[in-house]
Amino acid sequence: MSHQYDHDRPERIGMPEAVLCSSKTSAQISAIAAELANVGSPALFTRLSDAAAAEVETGGSNSWDHDSASRTAILNGPLPPRPGRVAVVAAGTSDLSVAAEAARTLHFSGVAGDLIIDVGVAGLWRLEQRLDEIRSADIVIAVAGMDAALVSVLGGLVGLPLIAVPTSVGYGVAAGGTTALNSALASCAQGVTVVNIDNGFGAACAAVRMLSMAQRFVGGQQ
Amino acid sequence: MSHQYDHDRPERIGMPEAVLCSSKTSAQISAIAAELANVGSPALFTRLSDAAAAEVETGGSNSWDHDSASRTAILNGPLPPRPGRVAVVAAGTSDLSVAAEAARTLHFSGVAGDLIIDVGVAGLWRLEQRLDEIRSADIVIAVAGMDAALVSVLGGLVGLPLIAVPTSVGYGVAAGGTTALNSALASCAQGVTVVNIDNGFGAACAAVRMLSMAQRFVGGQQ
Amino acid sequence: MSHQYDHDRPERIGMPEAVLCSSKTSAQISAIAAELANVGSPALFTRLSDAAAAEVETGGSNSWDHDSASRTAILNGPLPPRPGRVAVVAAGTSDLSVAAEAARTLHFSGVAGDLIIDVGVAGLWRLEQRLDEIRSADIVIAVAGMDAALVSVLGGLVGLPLIAVPTSVGYGVAAGGTTALNSALASCAQGVTVVNIDNGFGAACAAVRMLSMAQRFVGGQQ
Amino acid sequence: MSHQYDHDRPERIGMPEAVLCSSKTSAQISAIAAELANVGSPALFTRLSDAAAAEVETGGSNSWDHDSASRTAILNGPLPPRPGRVAVVAAGTSDLSVAAEAARTLHFSGVAGDLIIDVGVAGLWRLEQRLDEIRSADIVIAVAGMDAALVSVLGGLVGLPLIAVPTSVGYGVAAGGTTALNSALASCAQGVTVVNIDNGFGAACAAVRMLSMAQRFVGGQQ
Amino acid sequence: MSHQYDHDRPERIGMPEAVLCSSKTSAQISAIAAELANVGSPALFTRLSDAAAAEVETGGSNSWDHDSASRTAILNGPLPPRPGRVAVVAAGTSDLSVAAEAARTLHFSGVAGDLIIDVGVAGLWRLEQRLDEIRSADIVIAVAGMDAALVSVLGGLVGLPLIAVPTSVGYGVAAGGTTALNSALASCAQGVTVVNIDNGFGAACAAVRMLSMAQRFVGGQQ
Amino acid sequence: MSHQYDHDRPERIGMPEAVLCSSKTSAQISAIAAELANVGSPALFTRLSDAAAAEVETGGSNSWDHDSASRTAILNGPLPPRPGRVAVVAAGTSDLSVAAEAARTLHFSGVAGDLIIDVGVAGLWRLEQRLDEIRSADIVIAVAGMDAALVSVLGGLVGLPLIAVPTSVGYGVAAGGTTALNSALASCAQGVTVVNIDNGFGAACAAVRMLSMAQRFVGGQQ
Amino acid sequence: MSHQYDHDRPERIGMPEAVLCSSKTSAQISAIAAELANVGSPALFTRLSDAAAAEVETGGSNSWDHDSASRTAILNGPLPPRPGRVAVVAAGTSDLSVAAEAARTLHFSGVAGDLIIDVGVAGLWRLEQRLDEIRSADIVIAVAGMDAALVSVLGGLVGLPLIAVPTSVGYGVAAGGTTALNSALASCAQGVTVVNIDNGFGAACAAVRMLSMAQRFVGGQQ
Amino acid sequence: MSHQYDHDRPERIGMPEAVLCSSKTSAQISAIAAELANVGSPALFTRLSDAAAAEVETGGSNSWDHDSASRTAILNGPLPPRPGRVAVVAAGTSDLSVAAEAARTLHFSGVAGDLIIDVGVAGLWRLEQRLDEIRSADIVIAVAGMDAALVSVLGGLVGLPLIAVPTSVGYGVAAGGTTALNSALASCAQGVTVVNIDNGFGAACAAVRMLSMAQRFVGGQQ
Repeated sequence: MSHQYDHDRPERIGMPEAVLCSSKTSAQISAIAAELANVGSPALFTRLSDAAAAEVETGGSNSWDHDSASRTAILNGPLPPRPGRVAVVAAGTSDLSVAAEAARTLHFSGVAGDLIIDVGVAGLWRLEQRLDEIRSADIVIAVAGMDAALVSVLGGLVGLPLIAVPTSVGYGVAAGGTTALNSALASCAQGVTVVNIDNGFGAACAAVRMLSMAQRFVGGQQ
Repeated sequence: MSHQYDHDRPERIGMPEAVLCSSKTSAQISAIAAELANVGSPALFTRLSDAAAAEVETGGSNSWDHDSASRTAILNGPLPPRPGRVAVVAAGTSDLSVAAEAARTLHFSGVAGDLIIDVGVAGLWRLEQRLDEIRSADIVIAVAGMDAALVSVLGGLVGLPLIAVPTSVGYGVAAGGTTALNSALASCAQGVTVVNIDNGFGAACAAVRMLSMAQRFVGGQQ
Repeated sequence: MSHQYDHDRPERIGMPEAVLCSSKTSAQISAIAAELANVGSPALFTRLSDAAAAEVETGGSNSWDHDSASRTAILNGPLPPRPGRVAVVAAGTSDLSVAAEAARTLHFSGVAGDLIIDVGVAGLWRLEQRLDEIRSADIVIAVAGMDAALVSVLGGLVGLPLIAVPTSVGYGVAAGGTTALNSALASCAQGVTVVNIDNGFGAACAAVRMLSMAQRFVGGQQ
Repeated sequence: MSHQYDHDRPERIGMPEAVLCSSKTSAQISAIAAELANVGSPALFTRLSDAAAAEVETGGSNSWDHDSASRTAILNGPLPPRPGRVAVVAAGTSDLSVAAEAARTLHFSGVAGDLIIDVGVAGLWRLEQRLDEIRSADIVIAVAGMDAALVSVLGGLVGLPLIAVPTSVGYGVAAGGTTALNSALASCAQGVTVVNIDNGFGAACAAVRMLSMAQRFVGGQQ
Repeated sequence: MSHQYDHDRPERIGMPEAVLCSSKTSAQISAIAAELANVGSPALFTRLSDAAAAEVETGGSNSWDHDSASRTAILNGPLPPRPGRVAVVAAGTSDLSVAAEAARTLHFSGVAGDLIIDVGVAGLWRLEQRLDEIRSADIVIAVAGMDAALVSVLGGLVGLPLIAVPTSVGYGVAAGGTTALNSALASCAQGVTVVNIDNGFGAACAAVRMLSMAQRFVGGQQ
Repeated sequence: MSHQYDHDRPERIGMPEAVLCSSKTSAQISAIAAELANVGSPALFTRLSDAAAAEVETGGSNSWDHDSASRTAILNGPLPPRPGRVAVVAAGTSDLSVAAEAARTLHFSGVAGDLIIDVGVAGLWRLEQRLDEIRSADIVIAVAGMDAALVSVLGGLVGLPLIAVPTSVGYGVAAGGTTALNSALASCAQGVTVVNIDNGFGAACAAVRMLSMAQRFVGGQQ
Repeated sequence: MSHQYDHDRPERIGMPEAVLCSSKTSAQISAIAAELANVGSPALFTRLSDAAAAEVETGGSNSWDHDSASRTAILNGPLPPRPGRVAVVAAGTSDLSVAAEAARTLHFSGVAGDLIIDVGVAGLWRLEQRLDEIRSADIVIAVAGMDAALVSVLGGLVGLPLIAVPTSVGYGVAAGGTTALNSALASCAQGVTVVNIDNGFGAACAAVRMLSMAQRFVGGQQ
Repeated sequence: MSHQYDHDRPERIGMPEAVLCSSKTSAQISAIAAELANVGSPALFTRLSDAAAAEVETGGSNSWDHDSASRTAILNGPLPPRPGRVAVVAAGTSDLSVAAEAARTLHFSGVAGDLIIDVGVAGLWRLEQRLDEIRSADIVIAVAGMDAALVSVLGGLVGLPLIAVPTSVGYGVAAGGTTALNSALASCAQGVTVVNIDNGFGAACAAVRMLSMAQRFVGGQQ
């Protein structure tokens, strides 16, 4: 039996090294952290519960930075700052941990991010108050559960790239996030893209891909 | 084998006699129409395709009124006018036949109805332009497919009773209307109620129930 | 990061301020309660488990009223009494907490409500015994799990506005409430409306919308 | 390649020879009919569309009896009469072809059957009028689509064996019959059994099994 | 608020009084038990976990008979013996608690029952060894999870009434029992009937309905 | 725009060149056939309806061999014979076209195949009669719809590699084949493998992979 | 009744005017085309079947450009060229119409697009041959049905923004596109975004949003 | 009540005696272990949690070999070595326990197995590095969750029998393993077969069936 990490990924596709912790034991996470600490490679640990975080041993590494709200830890990071700014917009408090995962992944990737919450469409004026702030970003990540109506409303108001993150909060038909997911996919607003339920990490990575692409246009040579 | 219609229903619950045609043969529809024409009972035939309507024989009844857009026919109707006004709001042209079914059922029931279409939330200003008109009604029926975001936005802007009719238009995850249905049920706006997919008839009946109840308050004795 | 509650909602749509606690931490609930206590705004907290209720700190507010059976707490309430009476009818003991959530939301909203339980249709005489009591209300909320047959039977016997709340009780195909939900949506009784599974709160809000509308008819000016 | 029919089944389990035609070509049905006609074995052909029936060649057999309403044909039948009577109860006209399939299978099996239709629970008095007739049978087959509320109501009123046949009629969440199926399975009435959607044939076979068993009790020796 | 039990049900439909405990609190179960103990009415409590059973207070009633394996308790019972014998056949040890619920319900109802287990079709000879024993019963209840192949095999070998109880055991596509349920409903054996997943109680009640019907044939007067 | 076929696949993985026709236009199929005819490459066309087959132009190729029953055409084939024999076992006539697709793919691949049909488990003796014939093959492909009980019974009786092909025949819960698929996946028999619904082609390809592997053992050097 | 199109959308969010034809009658499409032709507004008509296209009357407009392969028509277009290039990559011929819809929407929007097809991962060398071509684009749209494995493989090889369009081609579990959709959402490659099944139009709109954003970086002022 | 194990199965179909522990109590497992220990029959216990393993009493048997990582115990084993080698390939660390169950079942069955992990397709070079090792085996078992893209990529690169084991790891649409399952079933690679979600045991049994068949070819007599 042998392990092999994808160490050349950052060079190949510009995406950060990341470890999804939710289906790993604390021992497995510790082993991976030790190996990455050894080579000094920056890495992001996601879906790291407080319980698991307490058990993970990082071998005295002083570059292990754990954040409870976003359930993440950063090792040997963050990456150097890069141009561009992303607005992470969330409908309500319940979506906060997913929004925080997106914001934290942006931070790890060296991208500036703003967290704008409690702007659900049931009270439209709250969203309208923040619209200028949102439009001043380069990319919008919309985090929403239940009916995910925020996605369509934002998509009709803002011309920026819009990445929807459906969340699993809610009960009855909303439980698990499939309603929010399908609602975002069926959005009547044009050109909205979607990632997996609760995948704040993936939405931030998509934003990083877009900003890397935009760098090609710097200088107007494109 | 014997048939028995529920002739005392109008007296018992105030709901109109109605015949769902979609799963009946033309011969069955003709037989029911003949029986109802015979007793002079007002009735509404729904989901009556043009093909079926052409085959149905109504025995020379001059009170058979077929309408293609709403796929309905009215026999011996409509019922006498009653107080109250209902706004039937539809997101787009594709939802028109369902909205027309609701409007036609209101007409059969003696209730005034306004049809307001092409107010999808992807272009929010279109909805905002019609808001005063909508608010002047007593009840709102919101007809919407795809992500049904119109339901939540309306629910946050209008304090009237709001009945959502999800529609089956759309493709991919929207096909069949389950996404619109679940989105309406999970709406972040409080107090929205929902009927079955494409059930314009049922939404109008629910409005009739509400207006009948409101009549109890006339004179303020309630 | 900034929070913004929808404080003008009561004025805009007449719906009560409400906080869904099930996907919030005790710290988040406490923070919201503190903010609302500060401004003196009446609010309803729903899906508040006993465990969370024990942890929530309300800053010594003597207007915090927690009720375990309905999993709710009322802050700075209830709202002033308003005309109209709602019958909350439940098929069995297992549906009691959802029915209680509906009744408690009505109470918070200033609306009189009667709780009528153990009237499942498997013993039809039990329902028939209570029929006069039910018919004397202005609106009926029917709370039912399993096959939700109560909804159709009530819908055929009573002409009042009928709001169905499917519940998640049961096992096998009934578990989670989808069978009850779909059964209520497909009800053969005309004009029944439906809210999300276990959404006693939403059904009560819908009733409040209807009673507010009915107030327009007081004096017969409508 | 070789075919082999289960000719000894009638002796082994007392069930009739039956051929499901819906997924067979006319040529395949003709070949099976010819073989069975040759050996003189009584057989029931189900789900035989009018189009297929017109194409099937039965080799001049004068014992081929096709019935369009139930989509069946009987070859070399029916079987000899046997004691017992079954009430086939259907909620509405739309369920008629499935109810007719059940009645026709009973007829083929030599069992007396009554067809009682248009007794949906939205007009409960219609069912109550027929209750004595239903109770006088030995077994009840309840055929119902949509919410299948008829099943629970009958199950609470009648102590006989009750076999539910959910039907696929309806639209939205009712389309295809899954809602009726799950509603029947989750019935709050005790001891209801269920067969596959639209399976009138299977319900009648189940009744035949029960009546065969009951014959063991004739003379009281059991 | 008022409770009302369906005390006349045994007379009306011959079904036992039963209390489903899984969605009730211990306090609710105790209150029901106390009321039933008071009137001396025989009752069966199902889905009673060991934890709940330990908390239920039965007021010193010496007719409270709790059985852990079947998760049931009998109060003031069982009912008097009645003719007929039922074979409860289970594919494996994992299905035992559901099979035991069926057997215990039969016992409470005064019906003799045999429990025959570990006869899954993967080892067909085990089933064939017990076939005479099974055929000597009047009714067969087949309890099976996973692919529920036992149902079809039994249905092809035995001509008795056959009631399938799909179980929720298993993992992957088998988890929750939907695969077993659908497999039983789609059984290629004729005349099999099905109850809800894990509903051993309901299968036994169905058997009681059938045996009551068969009593009509005693003396051959039918 | 440019096309590129995977011409080196046969060398790379030993799998035949195949063209799935069901979602291609006749013009697209003709173009592919012309290109393959040009290079003389043997190819199998599957899901080729009679209507499409009539429209496809093969440029006068005299090696185009169309078979209606299996909905396939062979171009420049079949491949040379190879050792091994496969039994294709089907529950009923309705599964014939899928079984024929498997048999025809084997024929194209140079593998001997036997078609054994009408051995559904509802009449177990029919299967038992053919058991020696089945056991004499090297691999068994079991084609079954509905409850797919044939898969588990065969899996318990035969120790050979067993590949299940669920079929989409049937109605109600069986329609589309998901019940058969899940039943096969949840089979209580050990070591059964499964392919997609109606995928007779894929099952035959899997058999070819297995027989290629077995060739490694010829001479016993393995 | 009144219609209102969202004419200011291009200015507000930079998205093209588009009309989804699949759920509209030919008369409705003609009316919309006439209105748009009147105001001279560029518009894209999607999901326009050949049958509908033949019936649509465009009032002699000589700027109506219908394309059968992509099921689109362009009115008064295309829009002026803008910088950036998009690679539309499709796994197979069956996905061609969806890929063509994406390419045609790009063309309408003034964006250069390359169509690269037949690069399914079952023959990986085909994809590897085209990799340089793909990497030279600014954005990749990956069109794939069945298992959509192309999405993950591309996502691991290319660091550009990657928009997945799952398609509905296939049979069994692949039919309808849900498997491809879920596979793309669950992709193990980081930062992939997804649009609705068969939504080639939406993917192209998302690319337009991204290229508009990238224009902000021209000159390096960002 | 009587138990009967399928002791002659090894002789009949060559499959190992196995006990699925997940839905059995510790007492039931202990009883089975005692019986099997008594007769000296080799057996594999699967899905044995550490908690259950600690409670199981094996009567002092010194041939009870528990392994925590694979959640298995071997009693009186393993079986004698047999020819052939199987590569168990897993996409990531999260799939390890399922892969270990497959490897352990192979070990119990006397088959050599290699465990090759962390070769997910998002970093294709990692898989390519191990390709020679994989190709040198006789059979490949591919263990993969999420989008299961590994299955299609391997299927296109390797001509060996390929058995896919979808796993339940992941979140959102990947949770539970249905996405991985359907993706594997819809694989664009030809001749891939699939077992139930997380069924490492079943995949190993399928490999044993294939290797037993291959033994027929030893000596070339086939």
